[in-house]
Amino acid sequence: MHVSKMVCQGFRAAGLACGIKKNGNPDLGLIVSDGLCQAAGVFTRNLVQAAPVKVCRRHLETGTGQAIIVNSGNANCCTGKQGEQDALRMCSAAASELGMEPGRILVASTGVIGEPLPVDRIAGAMPGLVKSLAPDGFRDLARAIMTTDTRPKIGWRRGRIEGRPFSVVAVAKGAGMIRPDMATMLCFACTDAEIDSALLQQVLLTVVNRTFNRITIDGDTSTNDSVLVMANGFSGARVDDQSRAIFQDLLTDLFADLAMELVKDGEGATKVVRVEVVGAANDEDARMIADTVANSPLVKTAFFGQDANWGRIIGAAGRSGAGFDPDRVDIFFDRVKMVNQGVGCGQDAEEKATAVLHQPEFTVKLDFNQGSGHWSILTCDLSVDYVKINADYRS
Amino acid sequence: MHVSKMVCQGFRAAGLACGIKKNGNPDLGLIVSDGLCQAAGVFTRNLVQAAPVKVCRRHLETGTGQAIIVNSGNANCCTGKQGEQDALRMCSAAASELGMEPGRILVASTGVIGEPLPVDRIAGAMPGLVKSLAPDGFRDLARAIMTTDTRPKIGWRRGRIEGRPFSVVAVAKGAGMIRPDMATMLCFACTDAEIDSALLQQVLLTVVNRTFNRITIDGDTSTNDSVLVMANGFSGARVDDQSRAIFQDLLTDLFADLAMELVKDGEGATKVVRVEVVGAANDEDARMIADTVANSPLVKTAFFGQDANWGRIIGAAGRSGAGFDPDRVDIFFDRVKMVNQGVGCGQDAEEKATAVLHQPEFTVKLDFNQGSGHWSILTCDLSVDYVKINADYRS
Repeated sequence: MHVSKMVCQGFRAAGLACGIKKNGNPDLGLIVSDGLCQAAGVFTRNLVQAAPVKVCRRHLETGTGQAIIVNSGNANCCTGKQGEQDALRMCSAAASELGMEPGRILVASTGVIGEPLPVDRIAGAMPGLVKSLAPDGFRDLARAIMTTDTRPKIGWRRGRIEGRPFSVVAVAKGAGMIRPDMATMLCFACTDAEIDSALLQQVLLTVVNRTFNRITIDGDTSTNDSVLVMANGFSGARVDDQSRAIFQDLLTDLFADLAMELVKDGEGATKVVRVEVVGAANDEDARMIADTVANSPLVKTAFFGQDANWGRIIGAAGRSGAGFDPDRVDIFFDRVKMVNQGVGCGQDAEEKATAVLHQPEFTVKLDFNQGSGHWSILTCDLSVDYVKINADYRS
Repeated sequence: MHVSKMVCQGFRAAGLACGIKKNGNPDLGLIVSDGLCQAAGVFTRNLVQAAPVKVCRRHLETGTGQAIIVNSGNANCCTGKQGEQDALRMCSAAASELGMEPGRILVASTGVIGEPLPVDRIAGAMPGLVKSLAPDGFRDLARAIMTTDTRPKIGWRRGRIEGRPFSVVAVAKGAGMIRPDMATMLCFACTDAEIDSALLQQVLLTVVNRTFNRITIDGDTSTNDSVLVMANGFSGARVDDQSRAIFQDLLTDLFADLAMELVKDGEGATKVVRVEVVGAANDEDARMIADTVANSPLVKTAFFGQDANWGRIIGAAGRSGAGFDPDRVDIFFDRVKMVNQGVGCGQDAEEKATAVLHQPEFTVKLDFNQGSGHWSILTCDLSVDYVKINADYRS
């Protein structure tokens, strides 16, 4: 998609380096709408929540917002009362430079937990940040929210409601600490569609459950995850109960792409694998099985080794807590059947499956031949580089 | 402990190579008692159970047994009806060579899942195996059950009940796929104490829950885990409700040592870490927190990197499902307090904690200052070598 397309009526964005990251990479970003927006958010369900999450939730209680200020390199989490004051100071510094109420500013942070936020650097960089705001600034923003990501994630979609065109632009970051329930991921979406905050919140929840909550990298979840959407209505395309599906499908498509990007760029990942469970007793059993298989270190290291080790897959299914008859399980690698009714299909199938595993993307399907329960999760392999990245993260 | 001590009255053991392992390492072992034993067993709770587990459970229904036949290099799991026939054939081959009923033979396998067991090689090696049985053969046995273990695990204890000495000798294997609920681990214990099988089963369950069920290497669990105990009564030392504590404490001490050996020899492990939770609302909350922290890839890679990254620890606790107040949590690395009431203790504490992390063994303690719930689990770090070992396991 061409870079010049990554714009959305009435929104501007910017990103720059303010000195939080030791390596001098961009670490501060801002999105502003020219008018007040309807806004919605979904946050981490981790019991330990970062200060910006607490502040952002409060500012979202009005169902409105006009700007998002975000830093990377420091999570501002487990930083006590000072942390909350610092998150509020981020908002007020942005607000005063933008000439609006601090309550209109949404806030997010990502990075190391437990270190004091260098909020003076953030405040000091604010005039320059505001000056650099531009309609096509979303790519700079996407770079400024990266932590161990190797590339920025940005997406754009255009739709039409009753003849009126509207667009959505979104940026995301992830890379590690990702699993259902949204771990260390941030996603900010802006749309010029018109939608009430209550409906926007419903749509967002639905979309996140179908996209970001169905990916996993290492099973860990974060204290800072936030998905925020702002809708300024500038296009005049109105989303209501009748036109909801158009907007929701478009947002699902956009977030699904970003979710795939997150897994592809998973820390050290060399493969993206869709774990698909069908024929389970019910959806909850299917979810438990998919989740356990997708997070098993033994399964994920076998993917890295390009080893069609289905024994580890069935072993993980067996400890998932779901009920099933092991003698009825079929397992496929893409279209290659490797296990039939709980028994391996032999050397020929193994060789074909190994060829599938040499691809960068493939599907592992488990069919329990029992009911209609189904679920799928995107995961990646567990590589030597994952360990290296995470052993050295803070140094 | 001197090798010559690793004996137990009336028991003989042996181990040799019969050609299951491609590299020619020992892969077949046998333990025999000179008389019928009271016997007990604890098995994997994975829904997918290997053929030898099913057969061994049936043979244990009498509460007795006289021999254990075991192979490594092949798990005989997900091998269908043929797998069960092969497990039975292992028993009958041993039984006919030993001149006893096949029902007296307990059986176990460990290794790759889903490949047919080369049972002819096992049967063919049986005469030589029986010939090499010796009272001090437990070390050979310990070698024959190794898979990715780098060293044999064997232990021995001596006790006394009402003046009568008795002893227990035990071998174990582990290395990967270990977590509470006993994953890919085998342990066989022999004692010349006298004890009824019902009481032996109770004691075994208690001891396993305090030892092998409190270790984790990668959170994966196996289809083949088995802990078996045989008691032949040859010492005349009688274990009953009165003397139970003496026997149970001795077995706990022995199994705790073996459990520690398993974690130390965890695949690629460079550190052994005790995760200790105190002050939780209740023991179940404490268990959930300890389990989640001990299995978090991010926490375990930080241990490998010798990085006192307590943010990942508190993050893992927060997603464990247990309830607690994040603002009351204290975290210690050995005696160094790193987190006070949910906030980091600063640079000085960090430097001291980093020194703790450079040790090969240390304790991470989380105090929730909330109740009397407590739990502890032994875990290891997640290293580059863990990934390498498990990516290449079958090749």
